[in-house]
Amino acid sequence: MIEYIYKNRVYYRDVDQMGIVYYTRYLEYFEAARTELLRSVGLDVITIERMGYFLPVISCYCDYKKPAKFDDELSIITKIDELPRSSMKIDYEVYNSEKNLLVTGYTVHSFINSKGKTVKPPKLLIEKLRG
Amino acid sequence: MIEYIYKNRVYYRDVDQMGIVYYTRYLEYFEAARTELLRSVGLDVITIERMGYFLPVISCYCDYKKPAKFDDELSIITKIDELPRSSMKIDYEVYNSEKNLLVTGYTVHSFINSKGKTVKPPKLLIEKLRG
Amino acid sequence: MIEYIYKNRVYYRDVDQMGIVYYTRYLEYFEAARTELLRSVGLDVITIERMGYFLPVISCYCDYKKPAKFDDELSIITKIDELPRSSMKIDYEVYNSEKNLLVTGYTVHSFINSKGKTVKPPKLLIEKLRG
Amino acid sequence: MIEYIYKNRVYYRDVDQMGIVYYTRYLEYFEAARTELLRSVGLDVITIERMGYFLPVISCYCDYKKPAKFDDELSIITKIDELPRSSMKIDYEVYNSEKNLLVTGYTVHSFINSKGKTVKPPKLLIEKLRG
Repeated sequence: MIEYIYKNRVYYRDVDQMGIVYYTRYLEYFEAARTELLRSVGLDVITIERMGYFLPVISCYCDYKKPAKFDDELSIITKIDELPRSSMKIDYEVYNSEKNLLVTGYTVHSFINSKGKTVKPPKLLIEKLRG
Repeated sequence: MIEYIYKNRVYYRDVDQMGIVYYTRYLEYFEAARTELLRSVGLDVITIERMGYFLPVISCYCDYKKPAKFDDELSIITKIDELPRSSMKIDYEVYNSEKNLLVTGYTVHSFINSKGKTVKPPKLLIEKLRG
Repeated sequence: MIEYIYKNRVYYRDVDQMGIVYYTRYLEYFEAARTELLRSVGLDVITIERMGYFLPVISCYCDYKKPAKFDDELSIITKIDELPRSSMKIDYEVYNSEKNLLVTGYTVHSFINSKGKTVKPPKLLIEKLRG
Repeated sequence: MIEYIYKNRVYYRDVDQMGIVYYTRYLEYFEAARTELLRSVGLDVITIERMGYFLPVISCYCDYKKPAKFDDELSIITKIDELPRSSMKIDYEVYNSEKNLLVTGYTVHSFINSKGKTVKPPKLLIEKLRG
C-alpha cells in the first residue's frame, strides 16, 4: 500500500561490546522510519496528534538475522500493507549497503484519543493510505 | 525451571511525551532482568563470556497492555521454562506495584563462540538450569 | 547539605564497542541518582511537579577519569551543597566497587512553572535542604 | 579550522514527558556530528581505529538555552578550532530551523592506543586539520 526507505547511519552510541548494534536500537530506528513513512504521504505525526489521535505501540517483534556494525549505512524498508481497522501494522526490513538483509520486524499500533480511549483510525489516514 | 523477579524504577529518561515508558525501554529492562536471572543461579555473564560463549538476541517480542509511568516501581518476572537446545527462550512479565500486568514479552538467544560461530549451549548452563 | 549514594549496575545496554560505558549513560545514571537524593529527604519528583514546579537541566558537565565496564557495580555519591537561589547545582562522583573514582560531574537545574516561566525555588525544597 | 553542519531530526525516542528533548540526547547527537565532521575531511573513525587510535571522551559540557521539541529539524554546527596536542576539543552549537540557538557544548577527547595507553594524536589527523 505505502512504502518508504529510511536511511540510517550506525554510530558508537548504537553498538555494544560484541561490536554489534544493540538489539533495542533497531526499534528506535523503526520509530524514525515510520514517522518518515507517514510524512512521505503527507501525514506528519504532529498533525495527527493535533487532530486528537495518538498511535502507541501495542506490540512489536524483531528477528535478528545478521548484525549491523559501527558506521554501517542501513536502509530500512518500511511498509503498511493493510488498511488499519482497530489497529495498524507496520513492517520493517533492515538492509546494509551490501544489500544483506539483517533484521526484519513489525510494530502494531492502536488509535487512542487524548484521554487514552481507543478510537477508530482517523479518516485522513485511511484516505492517505488508499492513495 | 528458573525464575527471578527484577525490580526496576522508572525515571525521566524512560518516559516519552505521551507520559508513558517508551516502548524500547522495556527491552532494556529485560536485558538487566535476564542478567540477574542468570546471576541468581550462579552464572554471571562475564563468566559465560570468559568460557567463550556469547548469547546474542536472535528474536524478541513485546505485548504492551498498559503503560508504565514515571516513578513506577516495576517488577519483572523473568523465566526460563525450557532447557535450551540450539537456542534459549526467556519470558518476561512486567507488573506495577498495584500488581497490574503491563507488558509481556520474550527474547530468544543463540549461542555463539568468540568467532561468531553457532555452538551448543554451555554444559554449565544446562546444569544450572536443571538445578 | 544533603547527600545520597545511588547504586547502579552496568549492563550491556550501557557499554560501547571499546568495552567501556558510553559517555552519555553516566548522565542518565545522574538523573536516577538525583531523583533518589530528593526522595531521601522526602521530596519525590511527582510531588514537586504536582506543586507546579519543574526542574529542567540548564547545564551539565562530566569529567571521565577511568572507564566503568560491564557488570561493574557503581556507587554514585550525589550531593547538594548550596541552597538554591535562581538555580540548583547537584554534584556527582562515580566510584566502582574497588573505590576507584571513575567520573565526576554536575548538573545545574532551573525552576520553572507549568507554563515554562522561571520561578523561585519551592519553599518546601528549601526547608528540606535546610534539614 | 574545520567545521561541519550536521542535520538531525528529533523523534519520540528523544523527547521526555516535559515535551522537550531529554538532556543526554544532545550528547548522542554530538557523537554523530563529530563522526561526520571527521568524515568530511576524509577521516572516518574506522580508519582511525585501524591505525590503532581511539578517541574516548575525557570531558563534556552542555549549556541548555532553549528546548528542542518533537519533529524539530536541528542543525548542529560542529567545529575543531585548535590543533590537538595531548587532547582535542570539539565545539557544538545546536540550532532549530528558525535559527534559534538552543544548546551549546563541547567534548574533549584524548588519544589512546589499543592497549588504553595515552599517545600523541595521529599525524594524519594533524595534516587533515591543517587542511
